[in-house]
Amino acid sequence: MVTVTDFRNLASTAAALAAEHLETLAERPVYRPVPPADREWLVGQPLPEEGRPLDELLEDVSRRVMGYPMGNGHPGFFGWVNSPPSPAGVLVTPLAAALNPSCAGGEHAGPLLERTVVRWLAELVGYPGGGLLTSGASMATIVALAAARHRAATEDGWDVRAEGLAGRPPLVLYVSAEGHSCLRKAAELLGIGTRWLRTVPVDAEFRMDPDALAELVRADRAAGLRPFCVAASAGTVNTGAVDPLDEIADVAAAHGLWLHVDGAYGALGALAADLADGFAGLARADSLALDPHKWLGVPVDCGCALLRDPDRARAAFSLVPAYLRDPDADEFGWFAEYGPEQTRPFRALRVWATIAHLGRAGVAGLVERTVGLAGRLAQLVREAEDFELLAPVATSIVAFRHRPAGGGADLNRELPAAVNARGRVFLTGTNLGGTEALRACILHPDTTEDDLVALLAEIRAAAAELAQLSSTQTSSPRTATG
Amino acid sequence: MVTVTDFRNLASTAAALAAEHLETLAERPVYRPVPPADREWLVGQPLPEEGRPLDELLEDVSRRVMGYPMGNGHPGFFGWVNSPPSPAGVLVTPLAAALNPSCAGGEHAGPLLERTVVRWLAELVGYPGGGLLTSGASMATIVALAAARHRAATEDGWDVRAEGLAGRPPLVLYVSAEGHSCLRKAAELLGIGTRWLRTVPVDAEFRMDPDALAELVRADRAAGLRPFCVAASAGTVNTGAVDPLDEIADVAAAHGLWLHVDGAYGALGALAADLADGFAGLARADSLALDPHKWLGVPVDCGCALLRDPDRARAAFSLVPAYLRDPDADEFGWFAEYGPEQTRPFRALRVWATIAHLGRAGVAGLVERTVGLAGRLAQLVREAEDFELLAPVATSIVAFRHRPAGGGADLNRELPAAVNARGRVFLTGTNLGGTEALRACILHPDTTEDDLVALLAEIRAAAAELAQLSSTQTSSPRTATG
Ligand SMILES: Cc1ncc(COP(=O)(O)O)c(C=O)c1O
Ligand SMILES: Cc1ncc(COP(=O)(O)O)c(C=O)c1O
Repeated sequence: MVTVTDFRNLASTAAALAAEHLETLAERPVYRPVPPADREWLVGQPLPEEGRPLDELLEDVSRRVMGYPMGNGHPGFFGWVNSPPSPAGVLVTPLAAALNPSCAGGEHAGPLLERTVVRWLAELVGYPGGGLLTSGASMATIVALAAARHRAATEDGWDVRAEGLAGRPPLVLYVSAEGHSCLRKAAELLGIGTRWLRTVPVDAEFRMDPDALAELVRADRAAGLRPFCVAASAGTVNTGAVDPLDEIADVAAAHGLWLHVDGAYGALGALAADLADGFAGLARADSLALDPHKWLGVPVDCGCALLRDPDRARAAFSLVPAYLRDPDADEFGWFAEYGPEQTRPFRALRVWATIAHLGRAGVAGLVERTVGLAGRLAQLVREAEDFELLAPVATSIVAFRHRPAGGGADLNRELPAAVNARGRVFLTGTNLGGTEALRACILHPDTTEDDLVALLAEIRAAAAELAQLSSTQTSSPRTATG
Repeated sequence: MVTVTDFRNLASTAAALAAEHLETLAERPVYRPVPPADREWLVGQPLPEEGRPLDELLEDVSRRVMGYPMGNGHPGFFGWVNSPPSPAGVLVTPLAAALNPSCAGGEHAGPLLERTVVRWLAELVGYPGGGLLTSGASMATIVALAAARHRAATEDGWDVRAEGLAGRPPLVLYVSAEGHSCLRKAAELLGIGTRWLRTVPVDAEFRMDPDALAELVRADRAAGLRPFCVAASAGTVNTGAVDPLDEIADVAAAHGLWLHVDGAYGALGALAADLADGFAGLARADSLALDPHKWLGVPVDCGCALLRDPDRARAAFSLVPAYLRDPDADEFGWFAEYGPEQTRPFRALRVWATIAHLGRAGVAGLVERTVGLAGRLAQLVREAEDFELLAPVATSIVAFRHRPAGGGADLNRELPAAVNARGRVFLTGTNLGGTEALRACILHPDTTEDDLVALLAEIRAAAAELAQLSSTQTSSPRTATG
């Protein structure tokens, strides 16, 4: 149906379109809403009876898709934890798709190369373990907690894979108030239940309090429950806080808990000379989630589950009975034995290209540069009379709020949408212990100090717009009390 | 670091490499083992301190990666259930990577387009439901069974997300002996336990026996257990069998079970005029797993979880409390509310391009063509004196064995490796109720009758090689008793 020459030309056109997108996006708005006609096209196309030629499809993509990004490719994007794609990662995607292996396992390029990149990721952050790539940290967390659950049951003399959890005493999981919601989702999926998910208090810097953790564990044990795992964070989504991992590891060791570290976003912070001390204890974790599709910039999707003893994941997932394992075969076996996915994509090629292009030094440079910008933004916030810093900068996230001298209504909850609608920068908000906050996450290698200045200016401008709007409303009869 | 012109040229080079791979792979062996030097490179590269230029990386990929495919791109590949990538899907991958959204949700092209393709997939197979794309059927199954578990608990008056499964009565899941192993993995992950996974017997055509199912459910209920779900198959991995869905739906309805249908591979069979009747009852399923990365040829990864009532998945996964849902917003909400993934890749673009390129008619044509070839292979097997058909062809898989007239040792277990080592065709084996079997799965649009003839010839040649080998061994002193 498609001739080879056609495909070759079309692939060049697609490559040019991708290049053009990357080339021009910084000149366009960071985000713009999808106009109704294109929105209707995107969500409402009827299933076509007949097919259409590939060049027409590329035109559709160019006209109706590429113009509506989420925003994270833009150097003015400060929202959530979403990075721009690494050029190396984009470059190799058609090759991975053309090769199209399933990386469940076996002796072909995909799973073999995955062995290398998993090792590289562990080595980058100084973690003495191995594991597998996943679709993201949410899945990596599920792998890690399933392994933790399996170990706990095994220690207690039962087989959770065979028996399930029915009729067993509750397993208790400890997470700080700043832990990512994927931990809760994992606890629910695994049948643990949020009632058995303890929220450990945090200190003034939003770090888990190890003494409070120990206290909670003791109380649960006294009540006949089964504490089995603590999930610490190395880079929280709200403030970028890194929990005191070494002290938490002490508590975990004292109470026989599995220590999981959510380093989805922040683990690479260990590469920054100034931050490395804060990551002491990371190597003591039983498992670590680390997302190459965050700071490293590997195109979505790519997470990684690392375990100090990867056999713990294999014990929790493998359907290959030990007696059937080929003693002559490579002892690692198949990746599908270490997690829930059977067919697995060739994520490794994007990771390989990204790291091979940057080198360890380049990754460290990217991390240090963005950490430096976050420090600079915090400084600008501190110096400004109308902004307030809400947390120290621990990685590359700055949590702050707008607080103009004159007082007035707290607009921080409304500000992100108002700022983003202006199109120059994009940021998201959060709530920090009851305080409405703005947060800026810096991951883009091309973000500059100008963008930081623009961020604060845009917030001020948006605040003025909101105030204007509300004063207009105030002067209307309906809000005469305002 | 990378200039725009550089990137444009490099992207063209990558496109050409991908095109060349697709163009030439049919002339190369379907599979060849990775030679030691390249294997060592693939698994053993040290983490580089300094980065390398992108053109060098593309050369590495060209020399050391593209030459070691899994085999599924080749028209002589009959193994497992792995298809070649659709040209349309390959074409758009760099565009998805350049745009690089997270399709967790929101108003941008990625999640909006996902709404269209999920609807298309449901419509293709006549399923009246909606859902979300996943990394594969393994994840789609986890989504479906989590929704089933949640419904069962809710019916019984408890909240499984809050309470977990500890202290509750076991939930019982019913799967046929031919059900895919991902069902077992899901039952383990969800804390249900394989002890509560009942294996329903199959008939002579490897289809689940609905009476036996009803019997098992009654016995479990009488024993005070909680039957909650039956997972039927629409296209088993071993023989392509389609369970009697309508009768199973009757049993499910009578006993209040959630009916999940694993159509990962076979659901598209409903598009073949000759097969459509066999899929009666599919529309009655509460959930359906369907893998665009199988028969449809969407480049890996892409699965899809469909639910008759998608809100059942939302109820099982969403962290957005109902009272916080914006009543003015689109009622669908975010995709991340319907499954375990937070950051989600732009899988929809590959699905969109693949279906838009083929049209419904083209997809039906692909299915009918491959089904026809499977029928033809079965005919060749039946006509041959040295082969035996082991199951009727229900979709596009042929289960058979080599059984030469002279008798001799049963070589069917050794045959796949011996056949694959020859490089002309690739197949895998299985065990069907104690019988060692060969199975050929036909998914490639370019497979021809010549490939079918070659398949049987290659099996004969490999069998002769194996016999030769064993007679050499027989004549050696050590095996004088042989
Ligand atoms: C700290 C943290 N943990 C976990 C996650 C979940 O990762 P993913 O979205 O890759 O599943 C995220 C981001 O979403 C995060 O920022
Ligand atoms: C019938 C069947 N169900 C489920 C699966 C699992 O799907 P996936 O590999 O996409 O997770 C497969 C294939 O592997 C299959 O053939």
